[in-house]
Amino acid sequence: MKDIDLRIYLVTDSTLSLGRPLEWIVEEAVKGGATIVQLREKDCSTHDFLELAIKLREILHKYNVPLIINDRVDIALASDADGVHIGQSDMPYAVVRKILGSDKIIGLSVENMEQAHEAESLDVDYIAVSPVFSTNTKTDTSDAMGLEGVKKVASFSKHPIVGIGGMNKDTIKSVIEAGAKGVAIVSAIVSAESPQSATRQLLNLIK
Amino acid sequence: MKDIDLRIYLVTDSTLSLGRPLEWIVEEAVKGGATIVQLREKDCSTHDFLELAIKLREILHKYNVPLIINDRVDIALASDADGVHIGQSDMPYAVVRKILGSDKIIGLSVENMEQAHEAESLDVDYIAVSPVFSTNTKTDTSDAMGLEGVKKVASFSKHPIVGIGGMNKDTIKSVIEAGAKGVAIVSAIVSAESPQSATRQLLNLIK
Repeated sequence: MKDIDLRIYLVTDSTLSLGRPLEWIVEEAVKGGATIVQLREKDCSTHDFLELAIKLREILHKYNVPLIINDRVDIALASDADGVHIGQSDMPYAVVRKILGSDKIIGLSVENMEQAHEAESLDVDYIAVSPVFSTNTKTDTSDAMGLEGVKKVASFSKHPIVGIGGMNKDTIKSVIEAGAKGVAIVSAIVSAESPQSATRQLLNLIK
Repeated sequence: MKDIDLRIYLVTDSTLSLGRPLEWIVEEAVKGGATIVQLREKDCSTHDFLELAIKLREILHKYNVPLIINDRVDIALASDADGVHIGQSDMPYAVVRKILGSDKIIGLSVENMEQAHEAESLDVDYIAVSPVFSTNTKTDTSDAMGLEGVKKVASFSKHPIVGIGGMNKDTIKSVIEAGAKGVAIVSAIVSAESPQSATRQLLNLIK
């Protein structure tokens, strides 16, 4: 198993950055203690997506923080990112692993208990329970799995768990206590006045 | 140089298929003489895109017709397609070639003379002059290059040329006469009552 620090897992969203460059937000978050970063872009060209991935990879490698690409295996290959995060409507896990090889990180979102059980037969590097709480950040998510969902998955899963959806200063401690190794945070960092101090506060809450 | 028959280059568009399955349209077109097929999907999930690519590849291999994937190098890898078509806002050519290797087909759209000249330094397998005529099929295209544009590019380019944009029974003969090796057709096949006979008629016009 790879040794991945999942505690503060920043997921980017350009539309929530209040006009500030994503590169700046990511570097500030990492200075504040973000342990892993996922680049998630849904509405930009492949050219622009790749450019951003390469920029973020350069920044993150200085801090020894892994870069994960949402969905797009081609962008991960082209930017030499550290891994890919896939959801249930992305490429099947086995295909992604075959293309990326065994060294890269692959994370998988599970949206219900059935999917969490199915993930037991896969050598994914982590699973994201998605969403733990309902959220406005994504529009295509399923019913919230709740803290009870995190607890249940943690009771049987061999995979490290990241909680995603509604993660903020009021919720993350309970998610970690429910058995997650980390929390995937979007707006509480990306939209924060100071992404650096927001990240630091979040990390302190779960230390 | 690879020996690719570019004469009737079908480009798919699910939104123009009048509700009929793309697999059916593609197989009909190939029976009518389509020589190469590009799967172009802009609004579907990676999962569905890959499923469709795998289905089309199975059909096309029976007929020994190459399958080209628009933009998405990961879909091409995962479906073992024959190549990728890239535009100017997709991944840079050198990166695509590095990921796909020398055996796969890579085509590149050029939207003006400058880009056509730049393509001379690349070992792309064909270039698409895009658009030759203005069209409603794509919304992001540049000014039409016209028959004069095809002629000019053909006068200096070492690459085989495909004309794209406004290709139908009234236009394709002139595009071939201007120096193109083939024509990229969307609606004149995808929206035809009989894609098979529409393709046959188009092929006969340029034979």
